[in-house]
Amino acid sequence: MTPPRDGEKETGRLEAFSDGVFAVAITLLVLDIKTPRAADLAAGHTSLTDALLAQWPAYLSYVLSFLTVLIMWINHHRMFRYIRRVDNTFLLLNGLLLLFVTLAPFPTSVLAEYVARPEAGTAAMVYSGSFICIGVFFNLMWIYASRRGRLLVRGYDRTAVKHMTTGYLVGPVVYIAAFLLAFFSVAASVGLCYLLTIFFALPGKKESR
Amino acid sequence: MTPPRDGEKETGRLEAFSDGVFAVAITLLVLDIKTPRAADLAAGHTSLTDALLAQWPAYLSYVLSFLTVLIMWINHHRMFRYIRRVDNTFLLLNGLLLLFVTLAPFPTSVLAEYVARPEAGTAAMVYSGSFICIGVFFNLMWIYASRRGRLLVRGYDRTAVKHMTTGYLVGPVVYIAAFLLAFFSVAASVGLCYLLTIFFALPGKKESR
Amino acid sequence: MTPPRDGEKETGRLEAFSDGVFAVAITLLVLDIKTPRAADLAAGHTSLTDALLAQWPAYLSYVLSFLTVLIMWINHHRMFRYIRRVDNTFLLLNGLLLLFVTLAPFPTSVLAEYVARPEAGTAAMVYSGSFICIGVFFNLMWIYASRRGRLLVRGYDRTAVKHMTTGYLVGPVVYIAAFLLAFFSVAASVGLCYLLTIFFALPGKKESR
Amino acid sequence: MTPPRDGEKETGRLEAFSDGVFAVAITLLVLDIKTPRAADLAAGHTSLTDALLAQWPAYLSYVLSFLTVLIMWINHHRMFRYIRRVDNTFLLLNGLLLLFVTLAPFPTSVLAEYVARPEAGTAAMVYSGSFICIGVFFNLMWIYASRRGRLLVRGYDRTAVKHMTTGYLVGPVVYIAAFLLAFFSVAASVGLCYLLTIFFALPGKKESR
Repeated sequence: MTPPRDGEKETGRLEAFSDGVFAVAITLLVLDIKTPRAADLAAGHTSLTDALLAQWPAYLSYVLSFLTVLIMWINHHRMFRYIRRVDNTFLLLNGLLLLFVTLAPFPTSVLAEYVARPEAGTAAMVYSGSFICIGVFFNLMWIYASRRGRLLVRGYDRTAVKHMTTGYLVGPVVYIAAFLLAFFSVAASVGLCYLLTIFFALPGKKESR
Repeated sequence: MTPPRDGEKETGRLEAFSDGVFAVAITLLVLDIKTPRAADLAAGHTSLTDALLAQWPAYLSYVLSFLTVLIMWINHHRMFRYIRRVDNTFLLLNGLLLLFVTLAPFPTSVLAEYVARPEAGTAAMVYSGSFICIGVFFNLMWIYASRRGRLLVRGYDRTAVKHMTTGYLVGPVVYIAAFLLAFFSVAASVGLCYLLTIFFALPGKKESR
Repeated sequence: MTPPRDGEKETGRLEAFSDGVFAVAITLLVLDIKTPRAADLAAGHTSLTDALLAQWPAYLSYVLSFLTVLIMWINHHRMFRYIRRVDNTFLLLNGLLLLFVTLAPFPTSVLAEYVARPEAGTAAMVYSGSFICIGVFFNLMWIYASRRGRLLVRGYDRTAVKHMTTGYLVGPVVYIAAFLLAFFSVAASVGLCYLLTIFFALPGKKESR
Repeated sequence: MTPPRDGEKETGRLEAFSDGVFAVAITLLVLDIKTPRAADLAAGHTSLTDALLAQWPAYLSYVLSFLTVLIMWINHHRMFRYIRRVDNTFLLLNGLLLLFVTLAPFPTSVLAEYVARPEAGTAAMVYSGSFICIGVFFNLMWIYASRRGRLLVRGYDRTAVKHMTTGYLVGPVVYIAAFLLAFFSVAASVGLCYLLTIFFALPGKKESR
């Protein structure tokens, strides 16, 4: 069967679809920040300021998830700079990655609801667990694509690709650590997730351009 | 009337719009996975873990619908590799396809709410019924576009196109079977829907590249 | 000031953004179709089938709004085939059009809630009223762009443009009629809105390609 | 490391992702306009018309936020006409901008809930505060990109760039004023926000094309 369109266009459409999913998922996170209802304020004799401040776990989760999904997107975007064509397996792995990206509002909401309650440990595990899954599929995509240059652009820089392979492993490893930390300290577990976003955000990384 | 823009650009915009709709529809599926509220846990004397596990029907429906819509998207994307230009009828058929794709969060939510209850049979019929509609419009689009090569790229591979025509029929046929199975066994009906996603996901299909 | 990018790219980005807004707005319509809750069924001694059928106003509104927004999109897309460049005023008019497109889930929901109740007349007016606004901004955009060919592609077909100018007027005129009809008969008002979508969907219109 | 893709493609994908986020965020604003429920009307002995009119704060906030986000998008789009390439820091600043754009439905909803209540002052501060943040990151992005032409297109017009730098400062300055005004008069604070959108919307600004 002659493929009537070239690989680059294919890749472009996969990127565009993935970007769409990332964009919607990242925007839906806000739905978990609820407006305190005026009736509840009156009933609880609280001021609006207090009610807004009392929602700090929702803001904390929102910011953390937003930054995390953003960094995932940046890395996805960076990965695609090296992808020349896509095949069925790659489409599927990307789909499974998106399944967990799309799910992100759920663990975010669980964390927001329970981070300041006795169930915080479980919530932190649900949270880090879902990002372990994202990290794993991310790595599977990259390993599948880069193994013997299968889907990579021609004449790619082998050293750079190796660095990326190592770099991408940081994600799931840190989330596994965050998952385990949650047994002992929720603050440490969530803090580690935050640190990871800062680590990735820091300029001057090996990724130069 | 001289069309001031070429068919390829037209087709590109239709693809982009459809991708947007697919991306939003697939992401809205998560809204049906609700965070157990802390107040409900306290009232019900349940742990967060139990409350999360009790929501298995929502996860099952989410994963099934996500994968199904994803495969729909992959096939839509694949179909457009063969489309050179679009006309009014094709736009409309694509629109009706999107109407049911967009609807997907609704049957998903119905299935999640009732799969573990006495009304499971009805829920499974609503579910498979909505995917019958998607499948039907998918086939109508393809038949309309490919009939005597109406909208296809020039010099397309006739054998490949015939294979696709047959392949696309699998969808609605299996969903009709799932619909009928729902009268006897919900597990079998839902299981068949899952099997279909796995069948389509399996690499090494006739679709090679 | 030298514009560093060409008009076509500008126009492309405006189209892409508008497409995104259309795609999200059309997909959010489904949020108004609610899943009957199992607890309510038990309390009301209704079957799931009855509960689903009782929601017919929501389906009716969903389908009507989906098709209407879809046709708006098709026409927006068609209009942009003639647009070569955009300016500030055009950006703004397009923005005001999108303001009402984005609003569409609201009148749809009002219609769904009240079409089978005494307040149906008001609901039908809200519904048609919001589409009057969409139609008006649509026409303003086109008139602004096409007046002496201001933003049109070079060498455009004057007769085709005139036909479009007349064709676009059908929308607001019919919605004004639907608005007025709502004082007498809601069924006639909603029916007219449906007829309009069918009229636009009918192939073999002056728009040939 | 040889970047396998050119800067323009990179920039294009960042624009497309940002457009997606803007499009979703602007469309989610409508979720705060609630349909008055028939049961509530009956209980409160109100007509649908009265119930719809009583929601004026929601419409006021919707229109204000829609126009504001739209203008942000137009300016973002305008800024990117001058951007040739993106780097890590720029990606991050853009991400933080999007974090607050995405958040926009929340302050909008707070304003809608409280603008006609005693807590209106706090609500107006939350509202203008969130747009201060958007404005600040907007300016940081532009200053970072334009400082010694770092990320700008080659041969850019220095005077135009300087004008833009000054023009972009208007946003945060006005929002700071609106924030401070909220201590004295909510109407003045919200009115100032409206005036700003009108100011930006007015044609015939220095931005000519």
